Amino acid sequence: MLTMQDALARLTAYWTAQGCLTVQPMNTEVGAGTLNPATFLRVLGPEPWRVVYVEPSVRPDDSRYGENPNRLQTHTQLQVILKPDPGNPQELYLGSLEALGIDIRAHDVRFVEDNWASPALGAWGLGWEVWLDGLEITQFTYFQQAGGLNLEPVSVEITYGIERIIMALQDKTHFKEIIYAPGISVPSEGPGIGNGAAAGISYGEVFGQSEYEMSRYYLDDADVAANRQLLEIYAAEAQRLIDAGLPVPAHTYVLKCSQAFNVLDSRGAVSTADRAAEFARMRRLAGDVARLWVARRDEQGHPLGLAEALPPATAAATPAAKTSPRALIFEIGTEELPPAEARSARDYVQRALTEGLAGTRLEHDEVRVFATPRRLVALVASVAAQEPDHVRQVRGPKVGAPAKAVEGFARGQGVPVDQLETALYGEAEHHVARKHEAGGAAAEVLAPVLAKVVTGLRGAKNMRWNDPQLSFSRPIRWLTALWGDDVVPVAVGTLAAGRRTRLLRTASEPIVQVASAETFMETLALAGIVADPEDRHDLIVTGAQDEVYPEGRIDVAGESALIEQITYLVEAPTPLLGTFDESYLSLPDAVLTTVMRKHQRYLPVRDASGALLPMFVTVANGPVDVELVRTGNEAVLRARYEDAAFFYRADRNTPLPDMRERLSRLTFTDKLGSMADRSGRIAALATSLADSLGLSSATLNRAARLVKFDLGSQLVTEMTSLAGVMARDYALHAGEPRDVAQAVYEAELPRNTGDDLPASIPGALLSLADRLDLVAGLAATVGLPTGSSDPFAVRRAVLGLLAVHRAHPALSGLSLLDGLRSAVAQQPVPVPATVLDSAGEFLARRLEQALTEEGKPVDRVRAALPHHARPSVVDTLLTQLDTLVGNPDFVAVAAAIQRARRILPPGTTAGYDPSVLTEPAELALHEAVAGVKPTWGADLVAFTAGVEPLVEPLARFFDEVFVMAEDPALRAARLGLLATVRDLGEGLLDWPELRL
Amino acid sequence: MLTMQDALARLTAYWTAQGCLTVQPMNTEVGAGTLNPATFLRVLGPEPWRVVYVEPSVRPDDSRYGENPNRLQTHTQLQVILKPDPGNPQELYLGSLEALGIDIRAHDVRFVEDNWASPALGAWGLGWEVWLDGLEITQFTYFQQAGGLNLEPVSVEITYGIERIIMALQDKTHFKEIIYAPGISVPSEGPGIGNGAAAGISYGEVFGQSEYEMSRYYLDDADVAANRQLLEIYAAEAQRLIDAGLPVPAHTYVLKCSQAFNVLDSRGAVSTADRAAEFARMRRLAGDVARLWVARRDEQGHPLGLAEALPPATAAATPAAKTSPRALIFEIGTEELPPAEARSARDYVQRALTEGLAGTRLEHDEVRVFATPRRLVALVASVAAQEPDHVRQVRGPKVGAPAKAVEGFARGQGVPVDQLETALYGEAEHHVARKHEAGGAAAEVLAPVLAKVVTGLRGAKNMRWNDPQLSFSRPIRWLTALWGDDVVPVAVGTLAAGRRTRLLRTASEPIVQVASAETFMETLALAGIVADPEDRHDLIVTGAQDEVYPEGRIDVAGESALIEQITYLVEAPTPLLGTFDESYLSLPDAVLTTVMRKHQRYLPVRDASGALLPMFVTVANGPVDVELVRTGNEAVLRARYEDAAFFYRADRNTPLPDMRERLSRLTFTDKLGSMADRSGRIAALATSLADSLGLSSATLNRAARLVKFDLGSQLVTEMTSLAGVMARDYALHAGEPRDVAQAVYEAELPRNTGDDLPASIPGALLSLADRLDLVAGLAATVGLPTGSSDPFAVRRAVLGLLAVHRAHPALSGLSLLDGLRSAVAQQPVPVPATVLDSAGEFLARRLEQALTEEGKPVDRVRAALPHHARPSVVDTLLTQLDTLVGNPDFVAVAAAIQRARRILPPGTTAGYDPSVLTEPAELALHEAVAGVKPTWGADLVAFTAGVEPLVEPLARFFDEVFVMAEDPALRAARLGLLATVRDLGEGLLDWPELRL
Repeated sequence: MLTMQDALARLTAYWTAQGCLTVQPMNTEVGAGTLNPATFLRVLGPEPWRVVYVEPSVRPDDSRYGENPNRLQTHTQLQVILKPDPGNPQELYLGSLEALGIDIRAHDVRFVEDNWASPALGAWGLGWEVWLDGLEITQFTYFQQAGGLNLEPVSVEITYGIERIIMALQDKTHFKEIIYAPGISVPSEGPGIGNGAAAGISYGEVFGQSEYEMSRYYLDDADVAANRQLLEIYAAEAQRLIDAGLPVPAHTYVLKCSQAFNVLDSRGAVSTADRAAEFARMRRLAGDVARLWVARRDEQGHPLGLAEALPPATAAATPAAKTSPRALIFEIGTEELPPAEARSARDYVQRALTEGLAGTRLEHDEVRVFATPRRLVALVASVAAQEPDHVRQVRGPKVGAPAKAVEGFARGQGVPVDQLETALYGEAEHHVARKHEAGGAAAEVLAPVLAKVVTGLRGAKNMRWNDPQLSFSRPIRWLTALWGDDVVPVAVGTLAAGRRTRLLRTASEPIVQVASAETFMETLALAGIVADPEDRHDLIVTGAQDEVYPEGRIDVAGESALIEQITYLVEAPTPLLGTFDESYLSLPDAVLTTVMRKHQRYLPVRDASGALLPMFVTVANGPVDVELVRTGNEAVLRARYEDAAFFYRADRNTPLPDMRERLSRLTFTDKLGSMADRSGRIAALATSLADSLGLSSATLNRAARLVKFDLGSQLVTEMTSLAGVMARDYALHAGEPRDVAQAVYEAELPRNTGDDLPASIPGALLSLADRLDLVAGLAATVGLPTGSSDPFAVRRAVLGLLAVHRAHPALSGLSLLDGLRSAVAQQPVPVPATVLDSAGEFLARRLEQALTEEGKPVDRVRAALPHHARPSVVDTLLTQLDTLVGNPDFVAVAAAIQRARRILPPGTTAGYDPSVLTEPAELALHEAVAGVKPTWGADLVAFTAGVEPLVEPLARFFDEVFVMAEDPALRAARLGLLATVRDLGEGLLDWPELRL
Repeated sequence: MLTMQDALARLTAYWTAQGCLTVQPMNTEVGAGTLNPATFLRVLGPEPWRVVYVEPSVRPDDSRYGENPNRLQTHTQLQVILKPDPGNPQELYLGSLEALGIDIRAHDVRFVEDNWASPALGAWGLGWEVWLDGLEITQFTYFQQAGGLNLEPVSVEITYGIERIIMALQDKTHFKEIIYAPGISVPSEGPGIGNGAAAGISYGEVFGQSEYEMSRYYLDDADVAANRQLLEIYAAEAQRLIDAGLPVPAHTYVLKCSQAFNVLDSRGAVSTADRAAEFARMRRLAGDVARLWVARRDEQGHPLGLAEALPPATAAATPAAKTSPRALIFEIGTEELPPAEARSARDYVQRALTEGLAGTRLEHDEVRVFATPRRLVALVASVAAQEPDHVRQVRGPKVGAPAKAVEGFARGQGVPVDQLETALYGEAEHHVARKHEAGGAAAEVLAPVLAKVVTGLRGAKNMRWNDPQLSFSRPIRWLTALWGDDVVPVAVGTLAAGRRTRLLRTASEPIVQVASAETFMETLALAGIVADPEDRHDLIVTGAQDEVYPEGRIDVAGESALIEQITYLVEAPTPLLGTFDESYLSLPDAVLTTVMRKHQRYLPVRDASGALLPMFVTVANGPVDVELVRTGNEAVLRARYEDAAFFYRADRNTPLPDMRERLSRLTFTDKLGSMADRSGRIAALATSLADSLGLSSATLNRAARLVKFDLGSQLVTEMTSLAGVMARDYALHAGEPRDVAQAVYEAELPRNTGDDLPASIPGALLSLADRLDLVAGLAATVGLPTGSSDPFAVRRAVLGLLAVHRAHPALSGLSLLDGLRSAVAQQPVPVPATVLDSAGEFLARRLEQALTEEGKPVDRVRAALPHHARPSVVDTLLTQLDTLVGNPDFVAVAAAIQRARRILPPGTTAGYDPSVLTEPAELALHEAVAGVKPTWGADLVAFTAGVEPLVEPLARFFDEVFVMAEDPALRAARLGLLATVRDLGEGLLDWPELRL
């Protein structure tokens, strides 16, 4: 059995053989290997660096007294830095797994999107979690920025979670059971150590006491005042050393700051203000350290030299011209793209290549593009061998221009003057040169088109790697471009297209030659790669259904988002069934499925009644040892469920007030206080709204005191998407009334578009208050979302506001703008008046968009939009309009109002002197108007009934009366009369918007 | 070439294969691997433990900005703990050197006495420095106590100094040049790191900047106030955690205390009071942590089990009886004994075995015992095969005693009553039992005798190892006991004697069978082992002389102490000649020879004029690759000289006041303040003594301001024995007058018995003041030395006082007691009056001893001893007595004085009424006495001349006068007259002591 210490030694040896230096862990407490100067400082600047080291990583917050099977206050990372990116870091990484004895052909090893950022370090990168049979064993990151500085070159950072890997390899369920070292009896007379030669010495035996005692320190016994003092001293010392120009000792003090802060945090002693200030300070210090380090290395002339950039690639030779049309295949090979990126890149390639081909004169079939995590494949079934020849006419000077100009033109075009012709441009005759151009050969013409497709690739979030020219979601590693049998001579950055493609990394021959464009797809298919996402989708669905038949079923519709995601996680889908212990079914459904979907991308399996079965389907990539992978995934799920069950039990044993109390340790945002503050504001707002609407209730009052308490639970801390669900569960378990529990749950609804809405009034009020508070606070501090950036999901909150309001006619009296105003008044920051206006406007726009997306005619939506503060009123109006637009009376009055608006000069007010009226038609209208009692509120039907008596007089008025009489008094009275008619519709609709 | 990172990996792998766990360095700064809990805590208690780890060890005081070739603020230790002692740790260690590719047969690997203690940790152990061709590469310790607790079992601690080892293996002269890792180009496309594939990446390239910057922090930039605060916070946190019963986190805070203290110290911010208090606090905290850890492990039932003790050995079978006498050989095999211990153990064995054999009836030759570092060999050329038979007569009751008593006696002796005989004891006849006892066979008789020799072995400082029965200077590992061809069946503790002996560890067969006692010495000799120290001494001397012939010579007499030491450092002396660069001859002689003798045990080589040659002789142990060992030793000496030259240059560039200033950072003792305080007291005392003697001078005043300043120099900090020598050198270099420089040097004289004495008066006064201060202060605080314990060398100081005084007649007016009184008055502690008395008494006893050891007749010494406060006066008196004891006048007067003293009743005072005298003889004496003018001071010659007129009258008086007359008045006058005579000698000698 591979012991933990041997695993560390093997990995170290492996990476040393790859040219890495071995250094020692940092000799001050750090939370991760990234903080060791061998990473944090060395990734900066232009010097090359390769290093491997072990880093015991201290996470005070993860202290569990050694009781939790998977969580330790100090876990062991093995950290590797490759700077610059060697071009094949994934392959090197897989080699390291083999060095550990992991058969990567038998196991399911996957690179699953994971982006890393440490705001306190001003650092981020893109990369993956590496999964071994569903278990996250490594963090793999292309490090892009550190200390706020762009990294040039970028480093590859590989961080192994050693305890997890060893637990998996040794098949242990608790970290304490890990065999840390062999318990061998020593070569000489001495006795062995540990509980017997066979078993070896366990992790618990070596580190158990420390794990317990350090947990005690971090959770219970650390002196808060002392650690606060330490934090200040460390920060001051860091600053002094920065001022002294010494980045190395300064960095150690930044690390000490970080540890002191973490200790305070785990002791629950960090206020929101502290946290914000501390992060800002650490970010600033880390940035200063980084800049200083770079400056020092510059001064020293970069002792380790400069990382060499790769040279630009040379394109393949241009093939000889051919005659018959052939297929075109163009493959852009990448490292694992995030699913959404793969999809949008596919669309982009489709568009870009179609446009590109259209810009040539090559005859061609339609472009088809397929995407997998590792490739974008464009296929054109037929592309002509040659563009047709072509005569191009170039306009020269007007006929009659000076001879010199004409000669110059001819010379410029390379045409003898006597061969110039003439042609008419508009009215004018010009000299023209007519040039015969031979059509280009396919390969030649295609090359720049394809190159442009590659350089145009952009993701939502882009990164750099070892190619100085390119930037994309993940590295592009190869290009395959074939027209028929010929390589299209594309070269982009350091990549030259060829006829080699890459199959699964675990294939016996991972890189193969492709004979021709026509055989390309077959080559992939024979290697098990399903390039077409639709095919993969179908394979996943039918494969999964086969696996669970006959006991279970997959909710294909319900899981469509997950299935779509899986489709882009694998190239060669291999669904396989796993089971878990039935006892876990006692956990809430949402817990079980959240773990399956979000953490593991497993498909839940249900019986005919929809109840969960103790099964799951995971989809491996490529041919694997099914039993092995199944067992591995089952172990991962078991650990996850064990973890969840641990938290669940712990939470259920925690009184609700205690959980609520923990909210004060959770920051909402720097400026808007803690989650406890926010929960308090929500409670106050919901009850005040209820008061104003006469909807107060004991249920609401109680629920308001609990709202969001489950954010303080361990389970929700782990799985935030369970907020609300767990609140209901824990509240019921704690003996709260069912409607209170339900209201606390509903306060979180809707969690996304299409989600359930609160059914109860208390729930709806809490939900509204929640979202009003969020919108008010963020609008005032961060600003309303623009473009695609919406980190706090304000858009979703606004949509929630609208949806909840619309769902509850009982709340139609509530103006969301008034609600926002109340919410604003509660914010811990001053909120300028303009914020409320923009928020109202934002709300209106979202409502307009929502309604039109629902298919409502845009004119009516806009007409009703003045009521956006009460969206349920808008709904009512739109419903009424559905009928009224066929009602002649309504149409007539509406038309009259619109006509009145058009006629009336700006500023015309209602009211007139009836005594100056003379014409019968105007007198009749006057009488009718005087007889109308405007009591319809926002009810268009009532309005129509109320103004019905005006229909006839209005028609006559417009037919018979000339409003703009000569006599000013008369004209004023007529205008006033019309204004009065106009104002009957005031506040009801934005009449001009209505198309009649 | 073995890179540093490979060396670490190889050592780790080697020790892992020996059953060691691998753990990580401590994640807080530590000064040594010993502080890592994997050592400090794990050596406590009964659980077994084996571990190997790397420990970057931070020594702020060693910061040199990376400029010194051999000194780093962070150096790399590799630490191994073997608990319990496996019985063969030295052999395992040598295996680790072989794992590094070191051919231990070609190199000279030696274990050189080195005892380790860390008062701040309450820890100590005995062991060695391991030398590789003269280079200290490892600390090897049998750890005896930690946190004030005895370690049971004992751990073996092996600490490799990695940078040194690698510098030696890679033949580098500066740590920055170490090849840390290969600069290989990596397997894939990426570029290599470092300055080219061949050279590799250097230590300087990797750690140089950190070395510089951390040095800056420790020496210049660390904030003193901040680190003081840190120290207090850490200590408080450690205490809190001890109170909370959490030894693990408490220990980390003790370590943090230690680091904060070290930072303060390197910043020069630790006062004497701070240091004492801080060490006491750390010792207390470390002790509490240790006790707490032991208690916790007890509570947990010792998760790693209990270390198994070795079973007692079973003695060999008793051989069949023989008839002819044969030789006896008894070898006690040890690990390398310190030279002094080997010598005294040899003497002990000689004595104990001689006594032991005397207690048997075996006829035997004289016992001869030889000692080497690894064995004590006792040889008896002939021991009879058998004790003669023997009749033993046991005395019973007197004849005539009751029958019952007689019967009881007979029964007790196992003799029938009728076989009892009688015999005369004194006057009385007794019943006796006469028992024929067969003589024992040699092996049988010898076994308990030899066993007792082993169990009786004791060193000056003893240790324990894996044998629960034994305790000695170093472990005893084997016993060889042969009488003729037979094994003497000795068993002691876990050791059974056999016929196997061990040769050099590097022998092709390190353990061999010995055929017989007679061939034993030959077996050793054939293996190159020279058992007889005298032979070794001669081999060393003649070998060394051969090596240096003809250019140089060895000062055999001058180096006798060193040669004696070398004699006990090797078993198979192999002298070899090395050279060093002539340029180093510009360093002071004392520097060069101190390094050679004290640090390296090299013999200096001089030319005919006595000037040093750039050569040395080292004595390797056993057959080595001479060229290799020579080169290695030369490199070590070069590094040492380079170091010394570095310090020397730095010191010469330091103004004297700056060096003097540094004394305030050196503690003299906890209670007696810093060296600056002491230097101030010496200066004040010397000048006041000079004043009182009228010997003041500008030279003295200037020298007094400088005295001991060189203790603040870097070179003397490194080599304290150069104190004074360097002072003179630096003072001259700084332009001080030659006599001032000389006085500062002489202030340190004499440094040991037989050393030069101050020649100048200023030097002598400073020397006296120095020693008076030392004696006064220590007598008042630590107490005067008793037995062999004299840590502050008070005895030597007193001898110095006496010698200096005796050497300077000009100082004969100075009473050392007055000097002590003045010194006492200056101490920073209250000194009880009794202290001065005891100090005077101590001085007198040392003077008496010194003089008698010089061969002075003890009676005269004692007679002159009342003048011990002025030892030069004693000298004068003794010189005078040499002659005067042959002078009849003196003898007569002395005899008269003695006689008077005998006759006179106690309390008789001088003075009498001459008018009552009647007898002519008494009147004559009266007249003579009245005529004597006692003006001789302490001059016995003058005294003799002065009292000469009394000789005749005294003779008559004693002949003719009966002193004790009946008449009380007459008797009183006669007694008074005699008392007057007696008192003429008062204060001159202690007359009764003088044997005439």
